[in-house]
Amino acid sequence: MKIRIFDTTLRDGEQTPGVALTPDQKLAIAQKLDELGVDAIEAGFPIISDGERLAIKSITSTGLKAEICGLARTERKDIDAAVAVGLDYIHTFIATSDIHLQYKLKLTREQALAKAVDAVQYAKSLGLKVEFSAEDATRTEREFLKKVFKAVTDAGADRLDIPDTVGYSTPQYIAAITKDTIDATHLPVSVHCHNDFGLAVANAISAIQAGAQCAHVTVNGIGERAGNASLEELVMGLQCLQFDKKYETNINTKLLYETSRYISKTVGIQVQPNKAIVGENAFGHESGIHTHGVLSNPLTYEPISPELVGRTRWFQVGKHAGAHGIAAMLEEYGIQPSKEQTHEILERVKKLGDLGKHVTDVELLGITGEVMQQPGLKRLVHLIGFSVSTGIGNMPYAFVKLNIEGKDFISTDYGVGPVDASINAIQKITGEISKVRIKDYKLDSISGGSEALCEVTIKVEDPYGNQASAKSVGEDIVITSVQAMIDGINRIMLKKILKQKNLGQ
Amino acid sequence: MKIRIFDTTLRDGEQTPGVALTPDQKLAIAQKLDELGVDAIEAGFPIISDGERLAIKSITSTGLKAEICGLARTERKDIDAAVAVGLDYIHTFIATSDIHLQYKLKLTREQALAKAVDAVQYAKSLGLKVEFSAEDATRTEREFLKKVFKAVTDAGADRLDIPDTVGYSTPQYIAAITKDTIDATHLPVSVHCHNDFGLAVANAISAIQAGAQCAHVTVNGIGERAGNASLEELVMGLQCLQFDKKYETNINTKLLYETSRYISKTVGIQVQPNKAIVGENAFGHESGIHTHGVLSNPLTYEPISPELVGRTRWFQVGKHAGAHGIAAMLEEYGIQPSKEQTHEILERVKKLGDLGKHVTDVELLGITGEVMQQPGLKRLVHLIGFSVSTGIGNMPYAFVKLNIEGKDFISTDYGVGPVDASINAIQKITGEISKVRIKDYKLDSISGGSEALCEVTIKVEDPYGNQASAKSVGEDIVITSVQAMIDGINRIMLKKILKQKNLGQ
Repeated sequence: MKIRIFDTTLRDGEQTPGVALTPDQKLAIAQKLDELGVDAIEAGFPIISDGERLAIKSITSTGLKAEICGLARTERKDIDAAVAVGLDYIHTFIATSDIHLQYKLKLTREQALAKAVDAVQYAKSLGLKVEFSAEDATRTEREFLKKVFKAVTDAGADRLDIPDTVGYSTPQYIAAITKDTIDATHLPVSVHCHNDFGLAVANAISAIQAGAQCAHVTVNGIGERAGNASLEELVMGLQCLQFDKKYETNINTKLLYETSRYISKTVGIQVQPNKAIVGENAFGHESGIHTHGVLSNPLTYEPISPELVGRTRWFQVGKHAGAHGIAAMLEEYGIQPSKEQTHEILERVKKLGDLGKHVTDVELLGITGEVMQQPGLKRLVHLIGFSVSTGIGNMPYAFVKLNIEGKDFISTDYGVGPVDASINAIQKITGEISKVRIKDYKLDSISGGSEALCEVTIKVEDPYGNQASAKSVGEDIVITSVQAMIDGINRIMLKKILKQKNLGQ
Repeated sequence: MKIRIFDTTLRDGEQTPGVALTPDQKLAIAQKLDELGVDAIEAGFPIISDGERLAIKSITSTGLKAEICGLARTERKDIDAAVAVGLDYIHTFIATSDIHLQYKLKLTREQALAKAVDAVQYAKSLGLKVEFSAEDATRTEREFLKKVFKAVTDAGADRLDIPDTVGYSTPQYIAAITKDTIDATHLPVSVHCHNDFGLAVANAISAIQAGAQCAHVTVNGIGERAGNASLEELVMGLQCLQFDKKYETNINTKLLYETSRYISKTVGIQVQPNKAIVGENAFGHESGIHTHGVLSNPLTYEPISPELVGRTRWFQVGKHAGAHGIAAMLEEYGIQPSKEQTHEILERVKKLGDLGKHVTDVELLGITGEVMQQPGLKRLVHLIGFSVSTGIGNMPYAFVKLNIEGKDFISTDYGVGPVDASINAIQKITGEISKVRIKDYKLDSISGGSEALCEVTIKVEDPYGNQASAKSVGEDIVITSVQAMIDGINRIMLKKILKQKNLGQ
């Protein structure tokens, strides 16, 4: 059964506190979502601002494949604002729960019902397609909810939506009211779930199993408070898990990761490493048991192949590592230690782990070089000297001195900030020597004082198709970034050289 | 019904790729978990390393209220290792799915069954309490799973655990096999869910509804790949949502947020802003409709009171803001603009939002000052000059020149990095003038190049009980941090002065 994906990243997602998008950014996101294959896009809430109207107008006039929808309260002025920006499909809503009626709207149930019917009739008289939401449906008295949905259906609504506005529903309850609604109206029903208790995706699936044909979702699950049902989790769950029925969507799942990264970067809301499907760790493995399993058959510890969502798997060494994982990581460099050597390397890695240390690939190679008595397995690029300066009124600039295979190199450059200046200065040297360039820079930091540890991950590449990433942890953001960059360069250069020399065979 | 909380943050959580804890850190986390009120703590996997054994030994000998458990494969040497570190309760496991048996263990079903029985008998002969897991239970042939659970029950197991190892189960299926297991064995059953499709908490709850008495969980849902069922979501869901039965736990929910922050900081895994219960935004509001509702009655847009989990709610201005929210935020400063003035302030805020700009409190006060023609509502502290330097071999140091209420101040200081040095230099001045000190520093950054935007949030406080936070976004990490600090200081000083003068009344 085909499930309709109604994406509300540009509406619920933009309501995330602190998120503000320009009209150009909203248009670019709409195009990304269209490419991904969503069936409908809620482009925004026309009444709220000039920029919002400009954004929606540019989206409606671009000719996307997806249906474009706009939000409107059950107010004629909201509906007029939607028409004015070229929308022919609106999502109109009014709260129906007693708590919202009493405290927020200060309306009786009958008054709210009348407003709902009036808005639907008015929108239909203007020729619009109308999806109606009974806001806070899951806390609305069950008989009154049916009455509202029945009344707007008689008024001409084309679709109905059941919002779990504060994420308060159980899967059982949302299934029950979905069934109520379908039985009472026979209209296509959508479900709009919030994630306050971590149940948004489960609730949406439960409503779909009860007959809902469409789910409102956002990329990365962003939205007010704990956000909305996450598009990527819902789509992959529907497609991969074993339900009574087979479900599918129009989403091109291979674009899920790329879309997630794009949205995270544009709206400025991070995705946690342990986020399902799109988190950094979702296809990463460290423990020996898991790595061993995945190397024998990825499906032992991966429910789906990472390629299905546009990703690749990765391994990390650490105190939970096993011999199989270490051997596989060294194999990547063409190095095959003996069984005893592997055991010795593993012991040294675990010792570092017990000290709370992250073990990078360059360190793993260093340990391996010592154990195998192969001096070739060591850093080629050494950071000898480094100094950086920034401030207000002066351009951020950096001096760097590197030693590469015994030869010294000095360089200076500027940038948008001290990290950028330093990386630019390093690239001036390494770009000439080995054509290594930075591909991606990621800085993680967590709360604490201004002296808290930060973690930098850098991906580097060369024009010959080699890629490597390196991570560094430290107190000084700039020095930590520089160290990660140097580690990444070492890794990519070692990789290349080891491939050529085929050391250790 | 009381549900048992088995916390596995120190085992599954530490298996998060890249996480490595020292024995001291593991002990400190165990103490935090004990304080929180978990019933059992899986302290680690004794066989894996010396550090792990040291950590578990120190935890078992500390005399915590929670039961302390250790992981062991169905190998006698693993069980012996557990006994050696003082454990009297083990969690032993062997995979039972055909994919794990064929590719990872290379055992027949009968061989695996024999190993399981042998391990349980051996552990019982040593006087241990035994919880047995059939790894990958949800992909194990259903009749064989029952046979394994029945056999280990006959061998003396005290508890059984159903792991959804790759997060592949539906709520329906895990409920069905939970019922199977209870019917076949009459033992207490736990459920151990992974979050690969975002269903870990829903699956755990479904198993509990089917009769499971215990859930394995981690704080913040950390763990391999997409992690495990999140403690805070499961506990709050069980306690607050309306199921057929009433559920409760021994967790002191008021400590949930503090514990989440502590774990995030110690293991170095960030919590995304839109994470349920403990995410930064879980009780934050921006949109006008939501803010208006929450101001009338918080329960309109909050399923539970933030105090219940040790938090407070907050509001943010932005393009979705409404007049009620603006008025409420200004009221905090004792400012009461007229209706027309509020409308004008709102329009200016929305204009900034349409430009993609975040509106801080200080900017809101600045706009308000202009609209109300009250020159007092403006920045008191201006950053006039600033310069910072760091490198290898030279200590990070900063020079700062501030103008505070018309008077210039110059200061210099050093720190562990350029941000720390700058903040220290600023505090040297503001600490003297107004006793404002930094309380918390948080830097968020997302992937991109080294020129990507970063976001800094700073909390400041003074000894008179005033607190304020400020956020700044920019390309230069150091300058952005300094700007956030200056904004925070302005906010706290304005707050204090406005309270005294009671401006705008």
